[in-house]
Amino acid sequence: GMAKIDHHRTLRLGLPEVIYAEGKTPEQVAEIFRRMADRGGAVLATRAGAEAWNAVKAQVQDAEYHALARVIGLRERHAATLHLGPIAVVCAGTSDLPVAEEAAVVAEYLGVKVSRIVDVGVAGLHRILSQREALAEARAVIVCAGMEGALPSVVGGLVAAPVIAVPTSVGYGAAFGGLAALLGMLNSCSPNVTVVNIDNGFGAAYVAAMMLRAGAKSA
Amino acid sequence: GMAKIDHHRTLRLGLPEVIYAEGKTPEQVAEIFRRMADRGGAVLATRAGAEAWNAVKAQVQDAEYHALARVIGLRERHAATLHLGPIAVVCAGTSDLPVAEEAAVVAEYLGVKVSRIVDVGVAGLHRILSQREALAEARAVIVCAGMEGALPSVVGGLVAAPVIAVPTSVGYGAAFGGLAALLGMLNSCSPNVTVVNIDNGFGAAYVAAMMLRAGAKSA
Amino acid sequence: GMAKIDHHRTLRLGLPEVIYAEGKTPEQVAEIFRRMADRGGAVLATRAGAEAWNAVKAQVQDAEYHALARVIGLRERHAATLHLGPIAVVCAGTSDLPVAEEAAVVAEYLGVKVSRIVDVGVAGLHRILSQREALAEARAVIVCAGMEGALPSVVGGLVAAPVIAVPTSVGYGAAFGGLAALLGMLNSCSPNVTVVNIDNGFGAAYVAAMMLRAGAKSA
Amino acid sequence: GMAKIDHHRTLRLGLPEVIYAEGKTPEQVAEIFRRMADRGGAVLATRAGAEAWNAVKAQVQDAEYHALARVIGLRERHAATLHLGPIAVVCAGTSDLPVAEEAAVVAEYLGVKVSRIVDVGVAGLHRILSQREALAEARAVIVCAGMEGALPSVVGGLVAAPVIAVPTSVGYGAAFGGLAALLGMLNSCSPNVTVVNIDNGFGAAYVAAMMLRAGAKSA
Amino acid sequence: GMAKIDHHRTLRLGLPEVIYAEGKTPEQVAEIFRRMADRGGAVLATRAGAEAWNAVKAQVQDAEYHALARVIGLRERHAATLHLGPIAVVCAGTSDLPVAEEAAVVAEYLGVKVSRIVDVGVAGLHRILSQREALAEARAVIVCAGMEGALPSVVGGLVAAPVIAVPTSVGYGAAFGGLAALLGMLNSCSPNVTVVNIDNGFGAAYVAAMMLRAGAKSA
Amino acid sequence: GMAKIDHHRTLRLGLPEVIYAEGKTPEQVAEIFRRMADRGGAVLATRAGAEAWNAVKAQVQDAEYHALARVIGLRERHAATLHLGPIAVVCAGTSDLPVAEEAAVVAEYLGVKVSRIVDVGVAGLHRILSQREALAEARAVIVCAGMEGALPSVVGGLVAAPVIAVPTSVGYGAAFGGLAALLGMLNSCSPNVTVVNIDNGFGAAYVAAMMLRAGAKSA
Amino acid sequence: GMAKIDHHRTLRLGLPEVIYAEGKTPEQVAEIFRRMADRGGAVLATRAGAEAWNAVKAQVQDAEYHALARVIGLRERHAATLHLGPIAVVCAGTSDLPVAEEAAVVAEYLGVKVSRIVDVGVAGLHRILSQREALAEARAVIVCAGMEGALPSVVGGLVAAPVIAVPTSVGYGAAFGGLAALLGMLNSCSPNVTVVNIDNGFGAAYVAAMMLRAGAKSA
Amino acid sequence: GMAKIDHHRTLRLGLPEVIYAEGKTPEQVAEIFRRMADRGGAVLATRAGAEAWNAVKAQVQDAEYHALARVIGLRERHAATLHLGPIAVVCAGTSDLPVAEEAAVVAEYLGVKVSRIVDVGVAGLHRILSQREALAEARAVIVCAGMEGALPSVVGGLVAAPVIAVPTSVGYGAAFGGLAALLGMLNSCSPNVTVVNIDNGFGAAYVAAMMLRAGAKSA
Ligand SMILES: Nc1ncnc2c1ncn2[C@@H]1O[C@H](COP(=O)(O)O)[C@@H](O)[C@H]1O
Ligand SMILES: Nc1ncnc2c1ncn2[C@@H]1O[C@H](COP(=O)(O)O)[C@@H](O)[C@H]1O
Ligand SMILES: Nc1ncnc2c1ncn2[C@@H]1O[C@H](COP(=O)(O)O)[C@@H](O)[C@H]1O
Ligand SMILES: Nc1ncnc2c1ncn2[C@@H]1O[C@H](COP(=O)(O)O)[C@@H](O)[C@H]1O
Ligand SMILES: [Mg+2]
Ligand SMILES: [Mg+2]
Ligand SMILES: [Mg+2]
Ligand SMILES: [Mg+2]
Ligand SMILES: [Mg+2]
Ligand SMILES: [Mg+2]
Ligand SMILES: [Mg+2]
Ligand SMILES: [Mg+2]
Repeated sequence: GMAKIDHHRTLRLGLPEVIYAEGKTPEQVAEIFRRMADRGGAVLATRAGAEAWNAVKAQVQDAEYHALARVIGLRERHAATLHLGPIAVVCAGTSDLPVAEEAAVVAEYLGVKVSRIVDVGVAGLHRILSQREALAEARAVIVCAGMEGALPSVVGGLVAAPVIAVPTSVGYGAAFGGLAALLGMLNSCSPNVTVVNIDNGFGAAYVAAMMLRAGAKSA
Repeated sequence: GMAKIDHHRTLRLGLPEVIYAEGKTPEQVAEIFRRMADRGGAVLATRAGAEAWNAVKAQVQDAEYHALARVIGLRERHAATLHLGPIAVVCAGTSDLPVAEEAAVVAEYLGVKVSRIVDVGVAGLHRILSQREALAEARAVIVCAGMEGALPSVVGGLVAAPVIAVPTSVGYGAAFGGLAALLGMLNSCSPNVTVVNIDNGFGAAYVAAMMLRAGAKSA
Repeated sequence: GMAKIDHHRTLRLGLPEVIYAEGKTPEQVAEIFRRMADRGGAVLATRAGAEAWNAVKAQVQDAEYHALARVIGLRERHAATLHLGPIAVVCAGTSDLPVAEEAAVVAEYLGVKVSRIVDVGVAGLHRILSQREALAEARAVIVCAGMEGALPSVVGGLVAAPVIAVPTSVGYGAAFGGLAALLGMLNSCSPNVTVVNIDNGFGAAYVAAMMLRAGAKSA
Repeated sequence: GMAKIDHHRTLRLGLPEVIYAEGKTPEQVAEIFRRMADRGGAVLATRAGAEAWNAVKAQVQDAEYHALARVIGLRERHAATLHLGPIAVVCAGTSDLPVAEEAAVVAEYLGVKVSRIVDVGVAGLHRILSQREALAEARAVIVCAGMEGALPSVVGGLVAAPVIAVPTSVGYGAAFGGLAALLGMLNSCSPNVTVVNIDNGFGAAYVAAMMLRAGAKSA
Repeated sequence: GMAKIDHHRTLRLGLPEVIYAEGKTPEQVAEIFRRMADRGGAVLATRAGAEAWNAVKAQVQDAEYHALARVIGLRERHAATLHLGPIAVVCAGTSDLPVAEEAAVVAEYLGVKVSRIVDVGVAGLHRILSQREALAEARAVIVCAGMEGALPSVVGGLVAAPVIAVPTSVGYGAAFGGLAALLGMLNSCSPNVTVVNIDNGFGAAYVAAMMLRAGAKSA
Repeated sequence: GMAKIDHHRTLRLGLPEVIYAEGKTPEQVAEIFRRMADRGGAVLATRAGAEAWNAVKAQVQDAEYHALARVIGLRERHAATLHLGPIAVVCAGTSDLPVAEEAAVVAEYLGVKVSRIVDVGVAGLHRILSQREALAEARAVIVCAGMEGALPSVVGGLVAAPVIAVPTSVGYGAAFGGLAALLGMLNSCSPNVTVVNIDNGFGAAYVAAMMLRAGAKSA
Repeated sequence: GMAKIDHHRTLRLGLPEVIYAEGKTPEQVAEIFRRMADRGGAVLATRAGAEAWNAVKAQVQDAEYHALARVIGLRERHAATLHLGPIAVVCAGTSDLPVAEEAAVVAEYLGVKVSRIVDVGVAGLHRILSQREALAEARAVIVCAGMEGALPSVVGGLVAAPVIAVPTSVGYGAAFGGLAALLGMLNSCSPNVTVVNIDNGFGAAYVAAMMLRAGAKSA
Repeated sequence: GMAKIDHHRTLRLGLPEVIYAEGKTPEQVAEIFRRMADRGGAVLATRAGAEAWNAVKAQVQDAEYHALARVIGLRERHAATLHLGPIAVVCAGTSDLPVAEEAAVVAEYLGVKVSRIVDVGVAGLHRILSQREALAEARAVIVCAGMEGALPSVVGGLVAAPVIAVPTSVGYGAAFGGLAALLGMLNSCSPNVTVVNIDNGFGAAYVAAMMLRAGAKSA
């Protein structure tokens, strides 16, 4: 096989490399997954459809599939329970759920406790305002929103924690596949907001886990 | 002079044509202003700097200058007092004030009562939430915001009235001169939001006045 | 179910929340529709295809389908007859009809009387000029156009009422999926023009209804 | 001097090369102008400011300056009077005048009779409709418009002649320096419309002259 | 039916309205085609696939189909033979042929004599240079090219006639669906070049016919 | 004064509001600065030029100016010494220094220890590789880079900490004012990279401080 | 057939014309391939799928198919062995392999020795650093990368040879189909980097071969 | 000083680092220049205006200024005479000269013999065709062009050598600061064309020198 698995990464970064299943055949995903599982430790594949899942489960018995998130995971055998966090994963509308679930599931595999807050878009403010308690406990907040992507700015003003904004491709017309939300988030008037790529729930979870680990180390 | 003043418009639309001073010499602005003043009725010039104002006031004694809004106006001699509205003109940050003032001043010349609500950006929600009473009275709300342009969505969810969103060119980098705010507003998840051009406070005021007039007629 | 229906909205805004069926399964649409119907009042779903319609009609007997508009609706049982308006819904070409019908049907469900004016693009001016009488009666005008999106400017000059412009994705090449029409409408030289998102007939109708309600209240 | 004057062009194309003064020093413009004048025939420089004009008139006595158009010209000594056309040069607003004048002046130097129709934007249709007679005589129509650039479509529907549309950089915000007008014109629903570059009055005149010459030859 | 056929157009413009079949059902195309055929005169439908053709031929016996051009046509019964022109229709590569054929076939239906010059892209200059004789006879030249769209500039320098440039969507990557070719053509350094929309062979033919008719009238 | 200082923010977020001096007059900056200084606590103004600084120092004796960073600051009187971090602030070229200094200075005012690593662009890898020790100690890394913005990806692969990428407007041509760097960073193949707006050193520092505070709390 | 094969090219450029199979029918590809094979010399078709391959092999016995590269080739009968180079073809991730293989296979047919270096993206620097020896031998390096496209800058700093960068369309969201990688490469801070179109492995190979031939001639 | 001069580069790449003077103060440029001169070897500064030149010449006696190219250079004391090449530097119009001169002067400092071919734009083909002999001798060709950027494709078809295309920011309107030329060149139908950044004459020269050196080594 041509793929060079970056095993150094776990050592260097303290977190495993993650398989990006998009554009790989089910067989390729399954083979890489098995090779990584053989070395022990957690294994993750994102953007994985049903075919990839079928191929993986035939090879790795203990793997699990999270259909909405399109994530295949294998927990570390003797992994500690969730011990970092908690973080909140927030989404604006029900259409943003797949991205939010990708973030939530990946964060959990990386050892982070997650509380989910869904369908709290800014057009009905009482919805997010009623979640202030849950938000206050979060050490970091991931906010997924499409269309105008206004939710991270509102959440950013409510919490004393970093906000990782994930623009989603939800919307039509001048949403331009997530561009409107992306630009909105980059220009947030809340100074605690950073941004990852459109639909990149995985990246947001990874950054959040990294923050918490670096923070833990530093304390 | 080459400009054909569209005097029909007042008859057709019930509102006077307005002089766009940008790109005209002070002399041109003053001459058109005087010709329109001679016919009676209200006269307005927008995007007018100090030079244009100096040229106009030399010719038309009763004209007034609104420096922040960059508007020169002449009230109808026997004009009724403000009788339409009220509307609210809301802005997100202090840098949006010139656009908001353009909207407010023009609306007042068109006979609309205006209440101003400033510096209530979404990063500190308590600011806009504390204005709910004033918003509730408004028959229409003009919301001016730059950067991510999230305020119209939030206001749209708080009022039972149409929201006219004005993206401003405030911001830098990925604000792209107001493009981020414009796209955000066009994709608002509040369904009572419409949008005018970047920095077009004048247009927002004109539309609001038109709505109120058409509404009055229809009642 | 994960969706939080914003029942507050009817109270706050005087108009019901509307289901956006795109990206929801037929089952999800049907379930939300039924839950909202159970509470009484009008219910609407936009962007609804034949499958969504089949799922809804199996659960809610009195629902109706508007195929061209792709709208499923349920009228309030003891709803007043149409009592707001009239508004005009105008479209430039026959390809703009689905968007125009979405606007017209939604407006009617929101209690607004609608007169439809179709296929009156600016390349044959006599067509729109022959409709001046119908336009004169309108309290607001919704204008749907793709390609260069010039019709709202022309209509804006003919009426003493607000024009809500809906760019459509009709066209090819440099139409860029409605971008050309959108930019044209945002730069309209008629000052009574506001703009909603590309293909957003729903939003235009909602704004028009909101205007008429706010106007009625204010009179 | 480094510039290679393309003298072949007059032979090949029947029309002289034209100096593009932008980005050349006054001295360079004057030297090229004189060299071309020495060979006889008409000479033209476009985008020429006052300094370029001062430099040219010191060297070429019979040259003339058209300040609004920013064109310096020298008529052929024994040139025939204007014998091609007529064409109409139409502009939407007074701010489009410099571009329209560039077109009109260049066309006249190329031997074409021009009738000017100014300030006839589509927001007040009676203005262009009252010019139908003048338009009917035109063998080609050049239409200059900024902002939404809707005028060429309207004119295109009124004449049985080709329309050469010139988008201008007039406007602000989402006009994006003429892009909105350019896209609008490229998507015109009138099939007799072609387009040249933003602010390229020169090019429009050149094409019109070429059409009339080719037409004359062919008759 | 909802479509308002613009029969005035033939009178006003001297050329028939043309059916744009894209986005219409075969039945709609056939019905409009038949209604227009019933009135006599030439009838044309562009962007017509095999299904549309099947529907039309069942209703209008004398109609013909041009598969590569995707044009359905009906010649005027007692139409004069081709009497305008000639024009040249030139294309850069074999992939540009469908657009070039749309232009050529439409021009012929409008009474224009056409000479076709294909696969003469600028990377092998001898190909276009060997066609100089054919080009010299043309009263107007239509040039279709995708990718970098350089051919119109080269042709523009070879002929004493107007060049109507048609950018095509041929290419990949940074061709951006014809945008690269479009921008190239708008910035042509040959001043006799005008531009129509991406892939708009029809529009180019219509403009060329209009030029020749206006020229003929004027001579 | 119209500006509503958001004093709640310090309570809500644990970090002070920061004055954005761009687009404010020196007098406005000085007045807001003084009002905030009167309440005690740290005060910061970003994007402050020499005039703003002159106005501030006339009113607030203990304020300091950081010219390269264009930041005016006032330290909390009894502020703890730097106790969070350390973080690293890295920049690719010397032209990125002003943005990097804005980040470093702001971070220091927010109580974070900073180590600066400058001029280590990826074209000479030995430069960044020789800094691995300093990087290893960082709890978060801010990376500023213009042009192709490749440095955050490289740094991301070297550290077990979150990377906050700041695209700068350094570059020309297809750098498009920082767009190329912005897109590059959003698409980073290192999963621990998040992004803030172009030239937004302030925001990067704020996020880093927030992370460290939230982390400290959570430990 | 309408395609004019540019047989001159081999003479002029020393390298054969290459068939671009995209958008051609299998029959067209096969016919052109056979005609070129009949003249002797190497023949190549790029972007060729399985159907094209089936059509070609039925006509030309000695042709070979490179499925990953989607290239059909026929070697010159008495061709010299690989005698130019070596060059290196480097790719960032496994998803970039098809583009890299197109480059490698085409280069080999053009007589260039190739060494392949795959999956060496910048997030794990040790991977490319461990290939420094192979890179040092290369006379030119082709680097294929999607997403942020950072690899050419890093490679450019490691070699004393020209780097031909190929942006790939690998990525999602703000990758915009290869645009992010393209812009990144155009702004490379390594001065020995040039760029070809997105996914254009063929072009990169062609340029590399041309360089080596021109270099050989010049020595 | 903060700048880390990459002295390794000369060793690694065989060519000196070059100072990019844009955005540096004259003093900074002069200091870096002197430090590099002190080490011996050639020194170059690009984008250097008159002030930078004055500062440098006060410190480094033997430095020379190339005003049109805006390059300051210092030749290696015992440098070999020009021994690589020749290459041709070609430009389309006189406005492209500064970019072309930057390329030519830099190439000469890097030891490459240059022949200059200017003002040979494609609108008058005889100009470039008359230079075929000079082109035939070139081992590489640098082609600078703005507007539609068509010249590299034409030159690419005439030579058996690599073409390095430099889009320039010459043009207006839809030239979009060089974007039109850039896209055109990236989509060139001549397969021997590669592209560098807009106005990047320096980069083109550097790549050409690198090619010739690598070629020389390999022979
Ligand atoms: N066609 C439409 N376009 C844009 N927004 C819509 C449309 N139909 C419904 N909506 C809005 O979408 C929201 C419901 O979204 P959801 O919660 O995803 O069902 C409501 O606030 C509606 O106002
Ligand atoms: N205003 C203008 N816009 C675009 N092209 C022009 C203009 N004026 C002259 N030209 C063209 O520019 C070319 C001359 O460019 P140059 O050699 O730089 O003087 C001629 O081919 C003219 O056709
Ligand atoms: N350099 C900066 N870039 C972006 N936002 C800033 C900057 N400096 C301050 N801010 C934010 O701008 C807001 C203050 O804006 P204003 O009310 O206009 O002074 C605060 O919320 C800050 O967090
Ligand atoms: N993959 C490719 N990408 C870009 N150009 C190609 C490719 N393959 C072949 N070509 C070029 O396409 C031209 C042939 O185009 P055609 O005449 O349409 O077959 C030749 O000049 C080749 O140099
Ligand atoms: Mg919802
Ligand atoms: Mg504020
Ligand atoms: Mg029609
Ligand atoms: Mg006017
Ligand atoms: Mg070919
Ligand atoms: Mg450096
Ligand atoms: Mg990998
Ligand atoms: Mg020239």
